[in-house]
Amino acid sequence: MEGKKLKYVKDLVCISCGEKYEPLPTQYLCPKCGEKGILDVEYDYEKIKTDWNKQDLKANPDPSIWRYLPLLPIEPTTPKPTLRVGGTPLYKSKVMAKLLGIETLYLKDDGLNPTGSLKDRASAIAVVKAQEAGMNIVSCASTGNAASSLAGNIASMGNEMKAVIFVPSRAPIGKVTQLLIFGALVLSVKGSYEETFYLSQEAINKRGWYNRNAAINPYLVEGKKTSSIEIAEQLNWEMVDWLVYSVGDGCTIAGAWKGVYDLKQIGFIDKLPKLLGVQSEGCAPITEAFKKGTDLIPVPENTIADSIAVGKPRNYMKAIKAIKESNGDMINVSDQEILDMMKTLGKNTGIFGEPAGVAGIAGIKKAVENGIIKSSESVAVVITGNGLKDIKNAEKAVGAPLTLRPDLKELSQLLNDYNF
Amino acid sequence: MEGKKLKYVKDLVCISCGEKYEPLPTQYLCPKCGEKGILDVEYDYEKIKTDWNKQDLKANPDPSIWRYLPLLPIEPTTPKPTLRVGGTPLYKSKVMAKLLGIETLYLKDDGLNPTGSLKDRASAIAVVKAQEAGMNIVSCASTGNAASSLAGNIASMGNEMKAVIFVPSRAPIGKVTQLLIFGALVLSVKGSYEETFYLSQEAINKRGWYNRNAAINPYLVEGKKTSSIEIAEQLNWEMVDWLVYSVGDGCTIAGAWKGVYDLKQIGFIDKLPKLLGVQSEGCAPITEAFKKGTDLIPVPENTIADSIAVGKPRNYMKAIKAIKESNGDMINVSDQEILDMMKTLGKNTGIFGEPAGVAGIAGIKKAVENGIIKSSESVAVVITGNGLKDIKNAEKAVGAPLTLRPDLKELSQLLNDYNF
Ligand SMILES: Cc1ncc(COP(=O)(O)O)c(C=O)c1O
Ligand SMILES: Cc1ncc(COP(=O)(O)O)c(C=O)c1O
Ligand SMILES: [Zn+2]
Ligand SMILES: [Zn+2]
Repeated sequence: MEGKKLKYVKDLVCISCGEKYEPLPTQYLCPKCGEKGILDVEYDYEKIKTDWNKQDLKANPDPSIWRYLPLLPIEPTTPKPTLRVGGTPLYKSKVMAKLLGIETLYLKDDGLNPTGSLKDRASAIAVVKAQEAGMNIVSCASTGNAASSLAGNIASMGNEMKAVIFVPSRAPIGKVTQLLIFGALVLSVKGSYEETFYLSQEAINKRGWYNRNAAINPYLVEGKKTSSIEIAEQLNWEMVDWLVYSVGDGCTIAGAWKGVYDLKQIGFIDKLPKLLGVQSEGCAPITEAFKKGTDLIPVPENTIADSIAVGKPRNYMKAIKAIKESNGDMINVSDQEILDMMKTLGKNTGIFGEPAGVAGIAGIKKAVENGIIKSSESVAVVITGNGLKDIKNAEKAVGAPLTLRPDLKELSQLLNDYNF
Repeated sequence: MEGKKLKYVKDLVCISCGEKYEPLPTQYLCPKCGEKGILDVEYDYEKIKTDWNKQDLKANPDPSIWRYLPLLPIEPTTPKPTLRVGGTPLYKSKVMAKLLGIETLYLKDDGLNPTGSLKDRASAIAVVKAQEAGMNIVSCASTGNAASSLAGNIASMGNEMKAVIFVPSRAPIGKVTQLLIFGALVLSVKGSYEETFYLSQEAINKRGWYNRNAAINPYLVEGKKTSSIEIAEQLNWEMVDWLVYSVGDGCTIAGAWKGVYDLKQIGFIDKLPKLLGVQSEGCAPITEAFKKGTDLIPVPENTIADSIAVGKPRNYMKAIKAIKESNGDMINVSDQEILDMMKTLGKNTGIFGEPAGVAGIAGIKKAVENGIIKSSESVAVVITGNGLKDIKNAEKAVGAPLTLRPDLKELSQLLNDYNF
């Protein structure tokens, strides 16, 4: 019934068994396949092509993700979160390109989204879908950007809706603070992340809350895809050779693929990019499965890049499928490479990314060294989260400042020592 | 000589004695009046009117401050920092308007500038002017947003330029970290802020660095004015009755006035707004001088809102002049009111501001209660800095999360207790 109102959505398809479902807001998984029954939104591209073209887009002054409405799985009239999600800047950086050994590099700073990460793109969609389901409480288990973006987007609805966030009690106070500022009900669970996650699932089912646990909800990927759609539009529909993303659960890179795939289907771009997925050496189960062609084996989470420290990712199938279809590749970077890149990027571009936010660009360096990316190829990478979210790790990346007494002579000496 | 290339700038006028100067990039102060000889940039409005109109602006796809080039005191061809400064969102908030007791409220989130504060607008101009002066090192004494925005904007020039930042050694490590990430040379001075400031002044003069100490540099205000120009454009040139800013040194609110004044002169707006300047009770020397009509008396700095904790402000004259000309007013808010507003704003809008960032909106509440702002008047306020910059104070604003064991029964009990 509700699905009928989605003008351009045909159905939800299970990526495991191919079964199709009506696109109801709460059709999370394929019931036949369970946790592996991740659903994918199928669009009616012919209809979209008839109704919408590049000129329409150009004439649209709205810089946010809602400018891509025909490609989003929502009813046009549902109230939207008011925060300006998306429309983040894309910079061309000659200096960084040179340092990485390539000719053309674009950097998209998604840390400038309203709550500081790319996840705003997904959470904005969740807030819309919840309303379409007639629910005003949205919930997830997360300490990171999924949670803060949900809390912020819910808050922007005024007092209409409420976010309920489950966090393991070891969650750093700074991250919990952002949630509480946004007025979320934060439930700190004395247990592991797994226990926290399952408690959230039980509560969501029992209470009839809307589920924003990524991967379980097929609509979130559709929000994330706007990052690659924006890149395409910002490049005036001339796609780069490579799109690079850091990978935790797998949703984001899967979304990036969906974005460019959609654009190709409706004729906005001619060429599809290759995808490079970057994980952290200390937690790289998807790279492992991708390289070996095996099923996913959960691993411990030993990395400073907490936003991609996902030992048991739930969307790896969609991610691996996307990277394979693109003829792309995966690579891992060490914590040290991540910390070094935080500094290199900050110093040469003025962009301050959180560890998971710069893992992608750290991966480019390695991929060029390994011959995966050729120096003549053009590359775009998304800085997925703001460094201000994780000052503690940034401290590890930088040294201490020079110290001196308030004395001009001492200053001169010091400056001379540093060839200044 | 150099001044000649500034097509629309007539001269620099001393706000104390009225003397005029050629607009050289390093003409910081009126030499006759010393520290009180703050200079103001005078434009040739007739020429601007001839060359530029609202339609030109509408056709310009650049969302950054550079879209207002004819009103900026720079040569059009000087290389600009590449960060996208400005173009921050303006939100209409019915919920907050109601809570504050007014009908119409707009919130501009300037925390979404590239380095997280309104100061990017000023630093971007400083980076341009330094180049016009033939200098590639820019310096200031600051631990706050002036410094981080300078460091970030300098970094975006690649390796062309360098920021030298003087900080008192008591500066919090988090703030210093952002500077180091951006590759600034950070000099930590074992002394007070005054000693640090004077050491920076001596070094700047001796070494021939460009001076980004606010108030001493007449061009910085011109960058800050873009915040009110943007508000005007975002409101389709229908000015609100009140523009509200928090006040530290005084530059920002003076800049806001300059912005709307310029727009009035070139006929883009008909009506000028009244300005409300908001200081913190624990450090309110400008409000004091404004109310009593006395000269400024320095005060201690006892407030959590560190970005406006300026005991000896240097641009109070320009600020007071602006507020008086606008028929505006000033008001103080307590630390508790600031902390409460961080929560109220976050919860009802999804905007997370730092303490100085929300002082303005806290002031609106009080100004409405005191009858300064009438409930029928329309108000726009700028959230001047991102809350992620100061998580420690945000922690004071919010309580602790609810804690529970991973147990569904315990959860149900808890939710019932909270009427959920
Ligand atoms: C900053 C940041 N980068 C990258 C990712 C990876 O996204 P995904 O988990 O969808 O693979 C996340 C996810 O939380 C993130 O917050
Ligand atoms: C976040 C924030 N708000 C307000 C101000 C006040 O600006 P001004 O010192 O120009 O009055 C500043 C200045 O540093 C600031 O950083
Ligand atoms: Zn299935
Ligand atoms: Zn003078």
